[in-house]
Amino acid sequence: MSLLLNGLAASNGIAIAPAYLLVGSDLSIQKQHTNDKDHEVSRLHDSFAFSRQELRVIRDHAYQRLGQRAATVVDTQLAMLNDPALLAAIMDQIKGAGFTAEWAVKVVTDRYLNIFEHQNDNDYLQARGTAMRDVAKRLLSHLLAIDLPDPQQLDHRAIIVAKNVTPTDTAQFSRRYVAGLVTDGGGRTSHFTIMSRTLSLPAVVATKDATAKINNGDLLIVDGIHGKVIVRPSEEELEHYRLLAGQFAREQEAWGALRDQQTISTDGRHFEVAANVGTLADLEDARKNGAEGIGLLRTEFLYMNQAALPDEAQQFTAYKQFVSTMNEQRVVARTLDIGGDKRLGMVPLPQEANPYLGFRAIRVGLAKPEILRPQLRALLRVSVYGRLAIMFPMVATIEEFRQARAILDEEKDKLVAAGVAVADNVEVGMMLEIPAVAMMADLFAPEVDFFSIGSNDLIQYLFAADRGNARVAYLYQELHPAVLRTVKRVIDAAHAEGKWVGMCGEMAGSPLATPLLMGMGLDEFSMRSSQILRIRALIKKLNTRHLQPLVHRALAAKTAPEVTELVKEFIPELKDE
Amino acid sequence: MSLLLNGLAASNGIAIAPAYLLVGSDLSIQKQHTNDKDHEVSRLHDSFAFSRQELRVIRDHAYQRLGQRAATVVDTQLAMLNDPALLAAIMDQIKGAGFTAEWAVKVVTDRYLNIFEHQNDNDYLQARGTAMRDVAKRLLSHLLAIDLPDPQQLDHRAIIVAKNVTPTDTAQFSRRYVAGLVTDGGGRTSHFTIMSRTLSLPAVVATKDATAKINNGDLLIVDGIHGKVIVRPSEEELEHYRLLAGQFAREQEAWGALRDQQTISTDGRHFEVAANVGTLADLEDARKNGAEGIGLLRTEFLYMNQAALPDEAQQFTAYKQFVSTMNEQRVVARTLDIGGDKRLGMVPLPQEANPYLGFRAIRVGLAKPEILRPQLRALLRVSVYGRLAIMFPMVATIEEFRQARAILDEEKDKLVAAGVAVADNVEVGMMLEIPAVAMMADLFAPEVDFFSIGSNDLIQYLFAADRGNARVAYLYQELHPAVLRTVKRVIDAAHAEGKWVGMCGEMAGSPLATPLLMGMGLDEFSMRSSQILRIRALIKKLNTRHLQPLVHRALAAKTAPEVTELVKEFIPELKDE
Repeated sequence: MSLLLNGLAASNGIAIAPAYLLVGSDLSIQKQHTNDKDHEVSRLHDSFAFSRQELRVIRDHAYQRLGQRAATVVDTQLAMLNDPALLAAIMDQIKGAGFTAEWAVKVVTDRYLNIFEHQNDNDYLQARGTAMRDVAKRLLSHLLAIDLPDPQQLDHRAIIVAKNVTPTDTAQFSRRYVAGLVTDGGGRTSHFTIMSRTLSLPAVVATKDATAKINNGDLLIVDGIHGKVIVRPSEEELEHYRLLAGQFAREQEAWGALRDQQTISTDGRHFEVAANVGTLADLEDARKNGAEGIGLLRTEFLYMNQAALPDEAQQFTAYKQFVSTMNEQRVVARTLDIGGDKRLGMVPLPQEANPYLGFRAIRVGLAKPEILRPQLRALLRVSVYGRLAIMFPMVATIEEFRQARAILDEEKDKLVAAGVAVADNVEVGMMLEIPAVAMMADLFAPEVDFFSIGSNDLIQYLFAADRGNARVAYLYQELHPAVLRTVKRVIDAAHAEGKWVGMCGEMAGSPLATPLLMGMGLDEFSMRSSQILRIRALIKKLNTRHLQPLVHRALAAKTAPEVTELVKEFIPELKDE
Repeated sequence: MSLLLNGLAASNGIAIAPAYLLVGSDLSIQKQHTNDKDHEVSRLHDSFAFSRQELRVIRDHAYQRLGQRAATVVDTQLAMLNDPALLAAIMDQIKGAGFTAEWAVKVVTDRYLNIFEHQNDNDYLQARGTAMRDVAKRLLSHLLAIDLPDPQQLDHRAIIVAKNVTPTDTAQFSRRYVAGLVTDGGGRTSHFTIMSRTLSLPAVVATKDATAKINNGDLLIVDGIHGKVIVRPSEEELEHYRLLAGQFAREQEAWGALRDQQTISTDGRHFEVAANVGTLADLEDARKNGAEGIGLLRTEFLYMNQAALPDEAQQFTAYKQFVSTMNEQRVVARTLDIGGDKRLGMVPLPQEANPYLGFRAIRVGLAKPEILRPQLRALLRVSVYGRLAIMFPMVATIEEFRQARAILDEEKDKLVAAGVAVADNVEVGMMLEIPAVAMMADLFAPEVDFFSIGSNDLIQYLFAADRGNARVAYLYQELHPAVLRTVKRVIDAAHAEGKWVGMCGEMAGSPLATPLLMGMGLDEFSMRSSQILRIRALIKKLNTRHLQPLVHRALAAKTAPEVTELVKEFIPELKDE
């Protein structure tokens, strides 16, 4: 008999392969004293040395396979092992209290964990907690001579089954062998879920007890479309899912045929379907998926990977690759967007009670023009290699936009005076992600070249609900009429001034939102590349004029579920979304 | 020669009195080892015992003079001293590392402080940090036999001058002797600033270096209206400020004559000027200042003061005092509004990355009906003793309002079925403080009896800026056209359905906002009682019809400074606001 587990559909697609259980080793220990403190200290030193050695190998593998971001996760742990304060605190417990090395490690790391763990929902401290937990495990595994599970040993195609997948685990996976992922915990927006979507790995999370119910080697079907896992499937089930997988593949293929097509509705209206990118790998993905432009170039990637701020020349080289690769297709570069949940080591930002309502994005840029100015100069110099637009993130008032634009104009004048070529068609716009700006869109519109609606933040602020906070995530409702009314207000105000409006949040790539956004006249949809062909296929089937009654009724609806119903009623092919 | 110091005007009024410097003692110590660990341990125990003894006295004084909230601040420190983990950790440093008691205290408390201090801008952890710092100081003062500065020794009328005034300091002040306050640090919204406004103590904060420039006993003029401090004033200056003080007093007196009058504009429109209250002392203040009702009864006060949740009977007794005292004047009770920056020991809430965007207010109430239901029952039972309205805080969606209202109706039905008398004129409304609700106000309006605009939170969310965060506080702009447009939208939507709209944030008591709110048709203004007569005096001079061109132009303005200029141009008496 097969067994059905339900969870959250975290990443699309169907995988059929045996299970590979990634479960923790038993590292439990008892409080014990030692008579030979020197021996314990020397064991401790060894465990640090071995752990460092292992992590360096893991780090290099991660870098080669998954890039800098995955390597950085391991670097955090290496930094902890290199921190003399940690070693000293553990030695104190051996020398002072006379504990064994194992117990001393436990006492000290528990003390840290205790702090980090009382920081539920604080991603930054949680990440440090995760790293400390991994470090503690690794040290104990050496002291106890017990092997940790090693995802690198996986040498056949399999579905990883784990309680939770830590960033260190992800860093060790070999993409070649991992067919899919199933976890007990996790949510739609956890680090690892997003990673599996980026890698197009079918994944089901939040199954609660998959690790208890699945044995190593069990044949599994992971249905990442509907959030189901079938353990030891019957022949009928295998048959059914092979059909489904084939259908999914054909759909993907049909979408593939749209790669080089423009996105035109049946009534002949052109919509730009563009990509959100942050790295050169993303750029490659965008091209592969037929992006008609880059609607959001996250410039943070350049800053993430190094110890010092990149200078103008480094930035010039980096941006040039994006702009010249896209050729005559527009690249909308967003100036540095740090703060909130994004921190950089070399730009120390304050710890804040509410970072999402804090010192971030253009607020940092205007307060620290020494960061903003070289970035703007680099972008302006790149403008002659393609079609560049620049946008400022988190603008809240007209004064802020004017200040940012004045800085841009100054740098442009300086460049021109110095004889540097700068294109004269660089569009200058802003992200629209703050409710006050939506209320003032009619007065912003004459001052900007375009708006790009950052739906993720906009929705958070509209509902006063942090979407990363599981307790209030229910209030993050893309299809809520309040969101639609706000978006409509912005589009109408911009169009009245002849300006275009894009959207670069998750909502732009969400099929249920597509007909509404089309009907309201959104000009540009920018999304993660894996969604592009799907959204293009959808837009090509729809007629904007026929969508008007839908838009009208959605704007008059009272709740998000009502809007969802309306969309499904109007567009039957979306009924399973 | 006199000396002029500039700061922020934190609390209105003028005080003339000698300075009383409240500056810290030198408690610096060196790292030292001991040969007599037992002796150090016994000294440590003594310092704990003495500190506890002192704090108990301070606590009782604080309770008598300033009430429970001030006492709670001291209780936090007592709890730290009673925490065996703190004592044990310090003893470890004596017994293990062989440190002196002083150094051991320093090592351990520094470790805690290190954690708390990396939590800048997190009020909750900062408060714990402040408490731990005070505890460390007190322990060291006993170990070193050095007296701490003692605000209780103040026995003559004086102006307190301090770097920062901690809650413990405030708890020790004798209101009788404190004529005013001057601090180096602080801001408009810090705990202590709010306290000084409540006590009507003239205060100037953020002077940067008042403690360095003022000597104990220097004669000072504190001009809390303009944010100036004059040190060792000349006779002319004294003369001038005595005149100003007299004028201020006369103004206060003239306002006093309005105490029992209704608030009617020159064109005969009645506005309700009501009070925000949280304690019985506030209620007394509201009556003294001629409040026409209670526009916001913060029910949290009942929960703050005790270890367990108050039961229905306790709540009944408490609410009854407010409702029956106000007699036929309306009392708008807000259901429990915890979360965000308000925490209660007996309702453990998660640590959140962004508490203002988190699990708070009605979100907690709906998730924990065991807290909401007895509160609603107690309120309903009180409804027959006066004129009660109930409102739910932080409602974001129509579903939430319907759920809350359904719970209320259920409890009402149960009471009626049990033969308990419940008034049938209890109005049921909601706070309007979330932008999405403003966008949907036309569809909320048929479902509510009234809206009360919570301008503090609404403005924070509109601009995505935490007003408690000094780096982004510049974005908290009451007079911004985005705020006015939002308020107008809500008022128009409510009036179209025949519902009334109040406002209970700071903006409701801000004179520059008054003509705009009047002109837009706000029905009820609820504020701290000290503002009531001032706002009443202002409203009585204005004509709502004549204000229409002002409203019209303000709604079309691009920035808050433009609106400020417009208001001052239309209403010359507000030019110094």
